[in-house]
Amino acid sequence: MHGLMQDRPLIISSLIEHAARFHPRTEIVSRLPEGGTHRTDWAGVRRTACQVANALGALGVKPTERVATLAWNGWRHLAMYFGVSGTGAVLHTVNPRLFPEQIAYIVNHAEDQVLFFDTTFAPLVEKLAPQLRTVKTYVCMSSREHMPSIDVPDLHCWDELVATQSEDYDWPEFDERSASSLCYTSGTTGNPKGVLYSHRSTMLHTLMELAPDTFGVSSRETVMLIVPMFHANGWGTPYAAAMVGAKLVFPGPHLDGKSVYELMRDEKVTFSQGVPTVWMMLFQHLDANPQLDARALGVKRIGIGGAAVSRGMLERFEKQFGAEVTQGWGMTETSPIGVISKLLPKHDNLPEEELVKVKLKQGRGVWGVDLKIVDDEGNKQPWDGEAFGHLRVRGPWIASGYFRGEGGSPIDEEGYFSTGDVATIDTDGFLQLVDRAKDVIKSGGEWISSIDVENAAASHPAVTEAAVIGIVHPKWQERPLLIVVRRAGAEVSADELRSYLAERLAKWWLPEEVVFVDSLPHTATGKLLKTKLREQYKGYVAAKAE
Amino acid sequence: MHGLMQDRPLIISSLIEHAARFHPRTEIVSRLPEGGTHRTDWAGVRRTACQVANALGALGVKPTERVATLAWNGWRHLAMYFGVSGTGAVLHTVNPRLFPEQIAYIVNHAEDQVLFFDTTFAPLVEKLAPQLRTVKTYVCMSSREHMPSIDVPDLHCWDELVATQSEDYDWPEFDERSASSLCYTSGTTGNPKGVLYSHRSTMLHTLMELAPDTFGVSSRETVMLIVPMFHANGWGTPYAAAMVGAKLVFPGPHLDGKSVYELMRDEKVTFSQGVPTVWMMLFQHLDANPQLDARALGVKRIGIGGAAVSRGMLERFEKQFGAEVTQGWGMTETSPIGVISKLLPKHDNLPEEELVKVKLKQGRGVWGVDLKIVDDEGNKQPWDGEAFGHLRVRGPWIASGYFRGEGGSPIDEEGYFSTGDVATIDTDGFLQLVDRAKDVIKSGGEWISSIDVENAAASHPAVTEAAVIGIVHPKWQERPLLIVVRRAGAEVSADELRSYLAERLAKWWLPEEVVFVDSLPHTATGKLLKTKLREQYKGYVAAKAE
Repeated sequence: MHGLMQDRPLIISSLIEHAARFHPRTEIVSRLPEGGTHRTDWAGVRRTACQVANALGALGVKPTERVATLAWNGWRHLAMYFGVSGTGAVLHTVNPRLFPEQIAYIVNHAEDQVLFFDTTFAPLVEKLAPQLRTVKTYVCMSSREHMPSIDVPDLHCWDELVATQSEDYDWPEFDERSASSLCYTSGTTGNPKGVLYSHRSTMLHTLMELAPDTFGVSSRETVMLIVPMFHANGWGTPYAAAMVGAKLVFPGPHLDGKSVYELMRDEKVTFSQGVPTVWMMLFQHLDANPQLDARALGVKRIGIGGAAVSRGMLERFEKQFGAEVTQGWGMTETSPIGVISKLLPKHDNLPEEELVKVKLKQGRGVWGVDLKIVDDEGNKQPWDGEAFGHLRVRGPWIASGYFRGEGGSPIDEEGYFSTGDVATIDTDGFLQLVDRAKDVIKSGGEWISSIDVENAAASHPAVTEAAVIGIVHPKWQERPLLIVVRRAGAEVSADELRSYLAERLAKWWLPEEVVFVDSLPHTATGKLLKTKLREQYKGYVAAKAE
Repeated sequence: MHGLMQDRPLIISSLIEHAARFHPRTEIVSRLPEGGTHRTDWAGVRRTACQVANALGALGVKPTERVATLAWNGWRHLAMYFGVSGTGAVLHTVNPRLFPEQIAYIVNHAEDQVLFFDTTFAPLVEKLAPQLRTVKTYVCMSSREHMPSIDVPDLHCWDELVATQSEDYDWPEFDERSASSLCYTSGTTGNPKGVLYSHRSTMLHTLMELAPDTFGVSSRETVMLIVPMFHANGWGTPYAAAMVGAKLVFPGPHLDGKSVYELMRDEKVTFSQGVPTVWMMLFQHLDANPQLDARALGVKRIGIGGAAVSRGMLERFEKQFGAEVTQGWGMTETSPIGVISKLLPKHDNLPEEELVKVKLKQGRGVWGVDLKIVDDEGNKQPWDGEAFGHLRVRGPWIASGYFRGEGGSPIDEEGYFSTGDVATIDTDGFLQLVDRAKDVIKSGGEWISSIDVENAAASHPAVTEAAVIGIVHPKWQERPLLIVVRRAGAEVSADELRSYLAERLAKWWLPEEVVFVDSLPHTATGKLLKTKLREQYKGYVAAKAE
């Protein structure tokens, strides 16, 4: 027996209609790649979204077909979030920081029909175009005056193709499980794999983004979205901001400390989301300009994800800005909310040192994300904050597979997605990432976190960067090999480093072997490329451990 | 093409599993009908919910069958919210304040199989039992020592039937559109009609309850739920509290000012929800005990619905308690979130008199509730804060009809539910209720709000209560008739009252006719019974208006 409630589908176009109806004059501010600042409002974004939908119709793009963007955060990209998905087509946000050959691979794999791009990426697009087999139309997201002179087929200018369309569009209703957007993960191995979001998954995730236990997005906020809109739906914030009519501020490509600081100040930003790298640049700007008063910015909350937050970063936001830091863990495959580091009332009276430990964990599970940690055989591990396990997650905004079945099914028999991360979970459900599953070192049946050893080594003043990989050991199966890049002009021996680590790590975690190198290999997005290191040190046999 | 996201149904049992997993030790505090205070926690509520589910199994209750409660707010009722719906059966929360014949009608109409009741209602249950055709089993929600001696068939004691069951239960998964709970509206005309919620509608409504733009329920809160759990799912708060693991405090039947005050103080309540009547009793307690310091309670937010908030009540909470008032409008048919009075940033600098006007509106639309106001012919009226219209609403937690098709379809051709209310909506989407559609007075093609005239009359010091109904007029079709109950010992003439009103209302709204009576008729739940007045004054012809 069904309930007698209205059967309204959860679809993304309802967001922009709501924002335009209830918050028509709330501003959307964008710094442009071409320079200058653009101002519109939610009513304006809706008009543009309708124009995007009409333009796609004019180009013959049909529902379920993919439309790609190579774009910074800005009002045109925002309008495309609603305008493309609203027609039933699929918005494919492409990460311009990938290697060009990876971009060509994913655009071809997605069979994108149209490619929209910011002027910044015109040279890249010109270079890629000959390899893009399915793209029929290219649209530069600029006015006529900033159109680049590049040689690509069927090139259009936004102002001519989109801005000339009707400002009304009758959004279709369809099955909420329909695909809405597509984002490829840039793993360290194999080809990128596409996560295909649905309208339903996006809308449920958006509702959860409003909760004070996650990001607490509300109509009271001015949100500066620094995290790129080509990363996991810009953490879902463009949708959440529309659901409540928050003011949005986009830095475009201007992510240097000075630009971010000035935009925060000028637009009275209350909440901002970004990865640690961007915040480091902001700190450097403040260091270089000690007369600036970060507290006067009035920023209340900072959301950080994508990489672990350091204690220094946490305390600097708290003390220098007077802002609360909300850390989180998620992946492209989790939309991205996985866990969020919101403190419980029981933490209010913890001593500072204890409290910091809680804050530096990745966070606590929220409704909608079932968590488990399991051993190699799939047995559930206890939530005691000690036991390591493979992290698996389940819920309505978690991926069930990859576009075109790439990589096979990532789902176990209980319906959980295997994240590839190793984590601990404590009694309050706070998760702490320990390592990537493929990087963890399995020594005599116990697991050693390569990341913890790397962090300990990198904290030595003579060390610039450190990598730890597992090498074969006749007795312990694997032992850690520490590979170190020394700071220019600094000296430190393997024994000195081992003594230093001995004060910081369990005895059986200490790497017997230390290698010094000039540099370490990285991926396009700056991650350590451990696959290459493992290849390089394949024959290296750990002999010293007893 | 579907997205590739996990297809997890939105079902209510997921809430109690989440709360027990992530917030096992967060307290649930209940004042009991039998006296004393009971303390458990979310892990305990889960155990009890599992016992409820097992008890229903033992009684042979099958999915889709209805299980009724006649109960105050408390931990057992809370466990039933999850335990009954979690099995696939339907929780029917019965309003014990209805007339006994109405209760018998709805229990028979719902075909309830089991009736759970608090000790308070034992005499009522004994009186009703012979009329209840489908109830096979009665369960008193008490321990053995408080079991009443009443003569009803198959009477069980909670402690023996429920508390002895296994504390584990494997919640089934099923279609999220399955019915979860049932609540009858007590209209002023005809028989009560049943609203049949689904798991999906309840879960989407619960997600929206977390938004700071509605009630902002979070793990940081201690919520005292005064609004009865037999009214529209207790405004959804039992579900929202579970979704985030908030501490819940239940006053049980102890709703007098002293009890409410002491419970707020003892349990450090931060947020409480109730109807104006309860708050009036709290104010009276404070008036009688001027040594009490309401601000020291630390209550941060008060949610008010069910009836319009007066300026006096608003300002008293703001000034005496230092609390923010969140007003809302909704109905049993809207789960109940319809609109919520959350201010926008643009209101921050409004002068006090302007700001109060905004705050006293019922509130602003939220995503998920499409609003429209229409004239008698169904034409949309402008959102200018002036135009009156019939209020219609649409969304995933709005009813599409009533149980067993009673009353026909309340849905128009665009899928909107007709609320029976008349309202204005302003340019920011703030809704103000003007009248009930059947009470509004249609004078020469324009509409007069009976409520506004009543409120103006009731503000006269010599008036205790006032009612306004439409009476036939040869030229204007209808004119208002004002029916007044004078305060004991006070004197005021019809002309004096009309002069008083002339300073407060538009000239064409002034009632030409005034009648003085000793008392006015009311429904069981205290609403003015205007149908009876209209019957009584049926032949009354308005002669004076030109």
